[in-house]
Amino acid sequence: MKQIAVIGAGSWGTVLANVLADNGHDVTLWARKEEIANEINTFHRNHAYLVEAEFHPNLTASSSLEAVVKNKEVVLFVVPSHAMRDMLIKIKPYVRTDALLIHATKGFEQESWKRMSEVIAEELPEWHDKIVVLSGPSHAEEVIRRSPTTVVVASSCQDSAELTQTIFINSYFRVYTNPDVVGVEIGGALKNIIALATGLADGLGYGDNARAALMTRGLAEIARVGSAMGAEPITFVGLAGVGDLIGTCTSKHSRNWRAGYAISQGKSLSEVLSEMKMVVEGVKTTRAGHALKEKYNIEMPITEQLYAVLFQDKDPKLAVEDLMNRGKTRELQEMAQGW
Amino acid sequence: MKQIAVIGAGSWGTVLANVLADNGHDVTLWARKEEIANEINTFHRNHAYLVEAEFHPNLTASSSLEAVVKNKEVVLFVVPSHAMRDMLIKIKPYVRTDALLIHATKGFEQESWKRMSEVIAEELPEWHDKIVVLSGPSHAEEVIRRSPTTVVVASSCQDSAELTQTIFINSYFRVYTNPDVVGVEIGGALKNIIALATGLADGLGYGDNARAALMTRGLAEIARVGSAMGAEPITFVGLAGVGDLIGTCTSKHSRNWRAGYAISQGKSLSEVLSEMKMVVEGVKTTRAGHALKEKYNIEMPITEQLYAVLFQDKDPKLAVEDLMNRGKTRELQEMAQGW
Repeated sequence: MKQIAVIGAGSWGTVLANVLADNGHDVTLWARKEEIANEINTFHRNHAYLVEAEFHPNLTASSSLEAVVKNKEVVLFVVPSHAMRDMLIKIKPYVRTDALLIHATKGFEQESWKRMSEVIAEELPEWHDKIVVLSGPSHAEEVIRRSPTTVVVASSCQDSAELTQTIFINSYFRVYTNPDVVGVEIGGALKNIIALATGLADGLGYGDNARAALMTRGLAEIARVGSAMGAEPITFVGLAGVGDLIGTCTSKHSRNWRAGYAISQGKSLSEVLSEMKMVVEGVKTTRAGHALKEKYNIEMPITEQLYAVLFQDKDPKLAVEDLMNRGKTRELQEMAQGW
Repeated sequence: MKQIAVIGAGSWGTVLANVLADNGHDVTLWARKEEIANEINTFHRNHAYLVEAEFHPNLTASSSLEAVVKNKEVVLFVVPSHAMRDMLIKIKPYVRTDALLIHATKGFEQESWKRMSEVIAEELPEWHDKIVVLSGPSHAEEVIRRSPTTVVVASSCQDSAELTQTIFINSYFRVYTNPDVVGVEIGGALKNIIALATGLADGLGYGDNARAALMTRGLAEIARVGSAMGAEPITFVGLAGVGDLIGTCTSKHSRNWRAGYAISQGKSLSEVLSEMKMVVEGVKTTRAGHALKEKYNIEMPITEQLYAVLFQDKDPKLAVEDLMNRGKTRELQEMAQGW
């Protein structure tokens, strides 16, 4: 059993901390606000994010980073992508030299468009073979009810990935390992672009064939840019690729899908964002996808059309027409050998 | 513009014939029953399968195989998998020596478990470089309404695939090419196993994480057995793999999903099949998957559990528990290099 620090008491951080506590580990959760830490310690609840759930008694919380991180064998980061680098700088003095560093954050650093494991390796280079990413189709609302869920953990170091698998796996949370860190991070981040586009198409009444087409051809462009960035194309067949895409594009829990749907009903992007009062990752990620497309000079027609709809006032129906009337192409262009 | 014969006036055959007629080709559809041929010729309708649709006037029909096939530049087969070999034997005397042979049939020949293009190549070996398969997420009910749809055509011969793409492509029916015949055929056939399993899990209330897990890990076992049979793993990221899987597992049009759902509500397989009064391909395909698993000695845990539920009275909840409690595995086992 391990001494584990979890950084970030949002819904996903809290739920992952509870999975670890279920498995018998000694888990301390860092919460920015002291009242959330107190509520978890006293009532085993976090009513801001998870109204109905009662947590395992092995899960305690604190608002002191030093108290949470110091001497821990494992540190799990579940912070927003824009907060990752600052957090790493703050906790570095307290991290054990042999600690395993796991992150479950989907997205890129703004402007630099670096992946989260790259940011971790830059700030904590001595831990470069201890960095692991956890991703996959996993709505927190279902994991906290112990509904069957599968995720993937990836690391350049096999021992670190397998240790993470051993720490997390149980009868409702099944963990697979994968050596492809780049593919797992890219899949989890870019899928939100496609979730937005799918919500838009569903709202316009295009039907099940069109939705399957958007998701599949969306995955193809994720796989193309992923390959250019060093990912293994086959990773996108896995839980962080198609799995997370299915989980996000076909679930009522997805904020990104709902935002796309709202835009299809004639609302402007700013109206939708102000009404939802929550971060819609897919909007930021569409900017990231657009930047990566330019940087690597990759064809990403769905990302390009969604960018035009969101930021250049393009009519969504015209965007779909333009997608359907592109030149003839090969399905696996830039992904596989052969003609 | 081409002279095209379409063999099979079920809903998918009729709709594909209508796409070709929309594109300006001269299309003759073979219908087993003369009254269906007459209805199409007189009223441009086929009320048995497509109640509301009116077909393009370029589409005519006949119940004479000789009249339909003779002198045609293209023959498109859309017959049930169990009827393919007999049909090939019957039409062989009428097929032009330079005809392109396309099929859109999903499934294996019973007992031999051969793919459809293998059956065609066995019966018409002189046309071996003219054989093309068409597959992808394409509910006929939506294509006939000209709702945006994407499919893939695969052939060992690039010219044959590109000719098929040119014949079919239009503004609502987008066609991609792929050299991997084996992968495209395997994906389209085996996905029905996972559609049945997904209906079962949805009916038992397992949630969106479990559904995404079943579909993704189902795709992984399709890709594993496909690779053993000579497919390119990356094809399963495409329209005949994940695309068709999404189209089938998340659509109300899918008979296989509905059959799985009915079984989850406590009905026996024979009750479900007699109530549906239509072929549920996934049941036959689960037998095929089970046979392929044995033949190639591949791990296919979902197929194995579904086989036990359908044919050995296993409790579906116990099947899910057994899936979740398997030993620790790597995500890309038997699919990719690396640890």
